[in-house]
Formats: sequence, C-alpha cells, structure tokens
Amino acid sequence: MLQWPKYVQLKEVGPRDGLQNEKVWVPTEDKIAWINKLSESGVREIEFSSFVHPKWIPALADARDVGMQIKRNPDTTYSALVPNMKGLENALEAGIDGASVFMSASETHNRKNINKSIDETYPVLGEVIQGAKSAGKQVTGYVSTVFDCPYEGKVNPDQVLRVCDRLFENGADNLSLGDTIGSAVPSQVEALLEAVLARFPEDKIIMHFHNTRGMAIANIMTSLRYGITRFDSAVGGLGGCPYAPGAAGNVATNDVLYLLHGLGIETCIDEKKIEEAAFFIQDKLDKKLPSKSLAYAASAK
Amino acid sequence: MLQWPKYVQLKEVGPRDGLQNEKVWVPTEDKIAWINKLSESGVREIEFSSFVHPKWIPALADARDVGMQIKRNPDTTYSALVPNMKGLENALEAGIDGASVFMSASETHNRKNINKSIDETYPVLGEVIQGAKSAGKQVTGYVSTVFDCPYEGKVNPDQVLRVCDRLFENGADNLSLGDTIGSAVPSQVEALLEAVLARFPEDKIIMHFHNTRGMAIANIMTSLRYGITRFDSAVGGLGGCPYAPGAAGNVATNDVLYLLHGLGIETCIDEKKIEEAAFFIQDKLDKKLPSKSLAYAASAK
Repeated sequence: MLQWPKYVQLKEVGPRDGLQNEKVWVPTEDKIAWINKLSESGVREIEFSSFVHPKWIPALADARDVGMQIKRNPDTTYSALVPNMKGLENALEAGIDGASVFMSASETHNRKNINKSIDETYPVLGEVIQGAKSAGKQVTGYVSTVFDCPYEGKVNPDQVLRVCDRLFENGADNLSLGDTIGSAVPSQVEALLEAVLARFPEDKIIMHFHNTRGMAIANIMTSLRYGITRFDSAVGGLGGCPYAPGAAGNVATNDVLYLLHGLGIETCIDEKKIEEAAFFIQDKLDKKLPSKSLAYAASAK
Repeated sequence: MLQWPKYVQLKEVGPRDGLQNEKVWVPTEDKIAWINKLSESGVREIEFSSFVHPKWIPALADARDVGMQIKRNPDTTYSALVPNMKGLENALEAGIDGASVFMSASETHNRKNINKSIDETYPVLGEVIQGAKSAGKQVTGYVSTVFDCPYEGKVNPDQVLRVCDRLFENGADNLSLGDTIGSAVPSQVEALLEAVLARFPEDKIIMHFHNTRGMAIANIMTSLRYGITRFDSAVGGLGGCPYAPGAAGNVATNDVLYLLHGLGIETCIDEKKIEEAAFFIQDKLDKKLPSKSLAYAASAK
C-alpha cells in the first residue's frame, strides 16, 4: 500500500466559484452569515468573493461589503478573485489576505472568458500580481481548462507548462490547475502531474476539480498519490454553469472531507460544521446541492 | 505511471439491485423493453431480476415473465438472484444462465436481511449452489457489508475471508463483494483486497460499490490497481434504499464507462446505448437518476 499525505489543505471556493453562476441573489447578510459559518469550520483558506465587474458577475456584486463585514478567523486566509487594477484596489480596501488571478491554458477558452489572447493576458495579470505583492498579499493564479477545452478538445500538458511558467515568472506564489469542465479521468491527471511536478515543487500546485462526470474524487485521489496536498472545493458541490443544468459544480467539500478523513488525513476542518454551512446555503438557494455526503446526511437526519 | 487492465467486465445489475427497492411499479413490458436495450449495449452480463418471494420484493414479482420474454443477446449471460430451492426452480424455468446467491459478512446485517445467522445461511445457499451447478449454471455469491455494517460498524477483513472461504467451498464460481451502504474509502478497499487477493485469484472476485457518499468511482479505481477487472453497476446509478432518500444507489454504469473508456480500458459496451437505456428507465420511474455523466448528457441534449 502506498502512503497518503498526513495533512491536506482545502480552499473553500463556494462563496466565489460556487455562487458566481447562481441566478438566485443571495442577500449580503446571508453571504456573511454563511462565510462566518465556513470560518468556524476551521478551513484555512476561503475565497469569499470576486472583484470582477458586477456586469459580468452580478451574483457577487457585493464583494466589497462581504469582505468588510465577515468575521475573520485569525487562522484563515481570505482571498478573492481579482481581474485588474481597479478590482485589486477594491479588493485591498475590502481587506483581502490574498488575490487570485485567472486565465486559461487554452487559447479559445481564454479569449471567450477574458476577451484577450493568452499573450495579451500576461501583462494584465502581471500588473495585478505585482500590485498585490507590493501590498504584501499572496497571489494564486488559476489556470483553467488544463485537461480539456470545451472549444479545442484535449489540452497538451506542454501548453499548461508554458502558462504556468509565465505566471510564476510574473510573481504568482502558487497555481491552481482547473478541470473547468469536469471532464478529466485519472490518467489525464497522472500525465499532467508527471509534467508539472517535474518542473515545479508540489507545494506550489493546487488542484481544482469539478464533478461534472463524477470523476472528481478519483482525480483527487490520483493527485494525492502524486504528493499534491492542496485542493479547491465548495460546500455541497456548489457551482456549475447555468447554461448546462446537468453540469455539476466544484467537487463538494463534504465529499472531499469524507475521503480525506476516511484515509486518516488531517485537514483542521470540522466536517459537521461544513455540513451545517452546506445546509445553510442549500436553504438559501432553495435547491438540492449535488454532494452525496450531504444528501446522505440529510437522509439520516 | 502504473498500468491499467486492458479489459474490464461489467455486470449490469440495474434490473435487479436497481429496481428492487423502487416503489413505482415498472410494468413487465417496460422491464423487457429496457433489458432488451441493455442487451443491445453489448454488456456481457445482466442480472435481470430476483426470484425472492414477491412478498419481500414486490417490484420484481414478474421475474419469471421477464426472464421468459426478454430477447437474449448470445454474447450476454443472464442471471438472477435466487434465495432458495423454490426460487431456483422458477429461475431455471425462466431460463437463467447464472444464479446469484447472497449473504452478509456481518452477523447482524445477515440476520436482519435473511432472518438467519451466518452459520445457518451456508446450508441453504449450499443447496441452491449445488442445484444450480447440477443444472450447468454459473453461480455468483454476493457478500454484502464487506467494509461496514449499518449495525456493527467496521467489518474485519478476516470475517469477510471466512465467509468467502465457505462460499467457495460450497461451490460458488465467483464472489461479488459489496459495499452495501456505500461507506468505504479507498484505504478500506486496499486493506480488503490485500487480504482477499492473497487467498483467492483476482478473476474470481467482483467488486460491488454503492455511491452513497460519492466514493464509488475512486473505489473502483483502487480496485483496478489491484488487478480487479469485474464490477457490478446499474445504469443511471439506480438503486438505493426507500427509507433513506439521500442514500444513492449502485455506482452508475454510465460513470464507470466514462472512467474505463477514458482510461483506455475496453468493455465491449456501447456508452451511447447505455445512455439511452438509462434515459428510458429514468422516464419510466419519473425521477432524475443520480449518474453525473447521465445528467451531463441530458444537459448537452
């Protein structure tokens, strides 16, 4: 039997990646109450919102208020998505501990998402990264579509490496590699991690899986085998695209905790409190979230 | 990177394990049409019904008619659950190619399920096994609760081995080891398979996972690493207990195929036809089945 890591750090991205596509407006006070619950769970990182212009992400138009009013757990770092210098200014005022910048590994997805070519994107992100670093903040670079692009198909690990190189050169502290459309199988994870970990230290790499075809937990397990100890997840499995109703969201924090704690891996996170936080947001959104462990907990109530 | 097996054989258990707890009566003609669709997918084994007394499983009261009227694919073997000699008689008349007997690895679950102690169960199963073998039929023994028992908690691999020993001694051709309550994590699968495969050849062992906490695909992946190449699954992820609404059913054939084909493993099964069969039964049951790949396919339509 192989060894599992002793400790894994999760970043709760529900308040950002989970909510960003929701059509139901979650009132600011509910977001704050929810994030406070997440903070109480002991999770060490929370991405609390996005400072992308509200025209693009109306669901998170209250990022500034949320950042200013949440109760901070001193053991937790609070980050937000930051697309440009205006966003960074607002994010800093809202008291971020970390900034997340984002781009795609595939040219077409990057263009559709950011309206820029990959090469045009670096200087914009570079400016934000330098700005955030000057303010003493940690910077994570999200690289999306690292396995498959909805427009271009398979993405070559070499292309992912090129983007990673440039983001590290631009000053990113660590990178989160995203299976944006939730299509990867474990052999793809192996191939990518073979390439990535030959080049970058494993503690700089975060894996970000969506559960669209039900592969996310298997992909996390594969990543653990490669020594990856940082993952993004969202309570209840929040997230997903409003234009693809069956497309599941982020891998559910609840299910990841079931796996990790079951394997004897420490997380500093109280599973019961994550469950409460998931039920809380499920009620506010008035829909059943996809997490299996959550559904099981609901049935056992 | 480790090697994956070249070929994996799935047994479609949707018509039996999937339907047995459904409260909606699926008319016999619909069951037949559905099983015919499954046969057309190329799946090599189908468990088409159960010959347990209809008092216990009313949803499958038409086992005999189903068995006699389905269109047989000559490449597929058709089996059914058989609890006793009366059931075997009916099953043989209905034209089974294989009989499945069942018991639990945990004393309490066995008693609750079969109303007998483990020791009292062997002679009953032994009689059925011998009867089926004399009629030239293959026999699979289902061993349930091999990881955790809902009444007793963790089940020791030694206890599972003892039950396996006795079933093989009684003439079973192969054994299907079931995570009945869908609670196992991959480290439990490793521990059990280390013990089981030290004693029995891997081609005699089938793994049977439920996806109650979302771990089934990761557990299948773990089993593949141990050389297991036979799994039970149900289209759409049918199944689950009516008294625990959130408790998911069998691992979804659709999701298993997404994994296996993604890994480059052959199955002889047409994914598209399995998808059609899943949509067919989903319509008949008038509820959304839990398979992620199916939900994705529905959203992409």
